[in-house]
Amino acid sequence: MTPPTLTLTYFGIAGAAEPIRLAAAIGKVPYIHKSLEFKDWPEYKKTTPVGLLPLLEVDNGKDDKQVIPESVAILRYFGKLGGLYPTDPLEALKVDSIVDSSLDSMKAIALTVQGSVTNMISDEPWTKEEVAAIRKRIATTKDAGLLMYMAYLNGVLEKNGSGWFVGDSVTIADLMVLRVTSWVGSGMLDGIPPETLDPFPLIKAHMEKIAALPEVKEFRDKHTTPYGNFKFGMK
Amino acid sequence: MTPPTLTLTYFGIAGAAEPIRLAAAIGKVPYIHKSLEFKDWPEYKKTTPVGLLPLLEVDNGKDDKQVIPESVAILRYFGKLGGLYPTDPLEALKVDSIVDSSLDSMKAIALTVQGSVTNMISDEPWTKEEVAAIRKRIATTKDAGLLMYMAYLNGVLEKNGSGWFVGDSVTIADLMVLRVTSWVGSGMLDGIPPETLDPFPLIKAHMEKIAALPEVKEFRDKHTTPYGNFKFGMK
Repeated sequence: MTPPTLTLTYFGIAGAAEPIRLAAAIGKVPYIHKSLEFKDWPEYKKTTPVGLLPLLEVDNGKDDKQVIPESVAILRYFGKLGGLYPTDPLEALKVDSIVDSSLDSMKAIALTVQGSVTNMISDEPWTKEEVAAIRKRIATTKDAGLLMYMAYLNGVLEKNGSGWFVGDSVTIADLMVLRVTSWVGSGMLDGIPPETLDPFPLIKAHMEKIAALPEVKEFRDKHTTPYGNFKFGMK
Repeated sequence: MTPPTLTLTYFGIAGAAEPIRLAAAIGKVPYIHKSLEFKDWPEYKKTTPVGLLPLLEVDNGKDDKQVIPESVAILRYFGKLGGLYPTDPLEALKVDSIVDSSLDSMKAIALTVQGSVTNMISDEPWTKEEVAAIRKRIATTKDAGLLMYMAYLNGVLEKNGSGWFVGDSVTIADLMVLRVTSWVGSGMLDGIPPETLDPFPLIKAHMEKIAALPEVKEFRDKHTTPYGNFKFGMK
C-alpha cells in the first residue's frame, strides 16, 4: 500500500507545528509543508474545519481526502509513523501523560496570548498591564501552574534517568515539553524571563539534548526561525 | 504476562473520570475504583504528582508501581486495552482529532468553573454576574467556541454516517464528546440552558446511541450519579 501524501499547513513560525516538524525530521516522515502568510489567514480561515491551524491533509489518491485539525493529534500520528510513540500501551500511557502535562503547564500563559481562548469569553482583551501582572504571577508563584509543572517534569527526568522523558530514546513527549520550555525560555514572552527555567537543571539539559540530535541540528540549519514566507517540503 | 492491577482514584462524581469508567465498562477492562470524598481532598492532594485527579495507579507486582496523572492519557490507555482505540494510525488520528476538539470546545466553559485555570491567574475569581455574562456569550455566540465546535462535530457525524464519530463502532472519541454534551445538556451550568444542543440533532442522537449500549445501561443502573461515598470495583 502506498503511504498517503501528507500536507501540513501552518504559519512560517515555530508555534504549534514545531513539535510535528521535529517529529517528522527525527522520524524521517515525508510531508509537504504549506506555509501560510498572516495576511492570508482571515480568508483561509473560512475554509478550515474549526478556524485553527495547523491542519493536516491526508491524500491517499482516492476520493476521501481528509483535512484534519488539532496539532497534538497530528503530532501523535507523525510520532507513530516515525517511531517516536511506543507501541506498548503502558509506555504510551507515560508518553501521553507527559504530553498532557505539557499542555496543562501552558494553559495559564496561553490565556495571556492574544487570539487564544480569551476571545471566546470577552470582546475586551486584557490590557498590557493586566497581562504583565498575570504573567508575573505565573513566573513567580509555585502553585500557578507553570512552575509546578516544571518541577514535576524535572522530577520525571530525574526518576527516568536517561535524559528522555520515557524510556531511553526521544518520543513525542520530549517534543511537547520542548514546545513549552523553548517558549518559556526564549524571553519572547513579556513578563516571563528566560531565567524562569534556571531552577530546573534537568529541563535545561533536556533542551540541549534534543538540540544535539543530528536530525534536529540539520533541520534547524535548514530552516531558520521564524521561517518567513518559505515553503519547505521534505518529500 | 499477568496484566497489571489498575486503580483509578477520583471523586464520586461523573466529571473527568466518566469517559474512563465508560471505556472500562464497554471494553471490559478490569480496574478498582477508589472514590475520594471532597473533605479528604486537601490532604490527599499533597500526595499527588500535579495536584489533579483522576490518577491511575498501575501495579505490576514489582517495585516500579506507577502513579500516572492526566485523565485523557488514562482514557487513551483504557481505550487501547478495551479495543476502543483504532490500531490503524490514520483511524487513530481521526479519533485523536475528535478527542482534542472536544477538549477545545470545553475551554471557555472550563474557565468559568471554580478550581480551574482561573486560579492560576488571579486570587480573585470572577463574580457570579461575570460568570453569567461569559456563559451567556458562550451559549449564544457562534464564534465563541462551544457552538462552533458543536456545529463541527455534528457535521463530522453527518459525514461519517454510522452514528459514531470514527468508523462504525464506539471509540474513546465518542466518550470524550459525550463528556461535553452531557455536561452542556444537563442544565447544571448556570447560564448554559439544556436547549443549547437543540440545533444539533445528530449530537443529541449520538448521546442516546451511547446511552443505549447494553454495557452503558448496566453501568448506569449500577452506579447512580453522583456516586457519593461509594467504592466500586470491577475486578
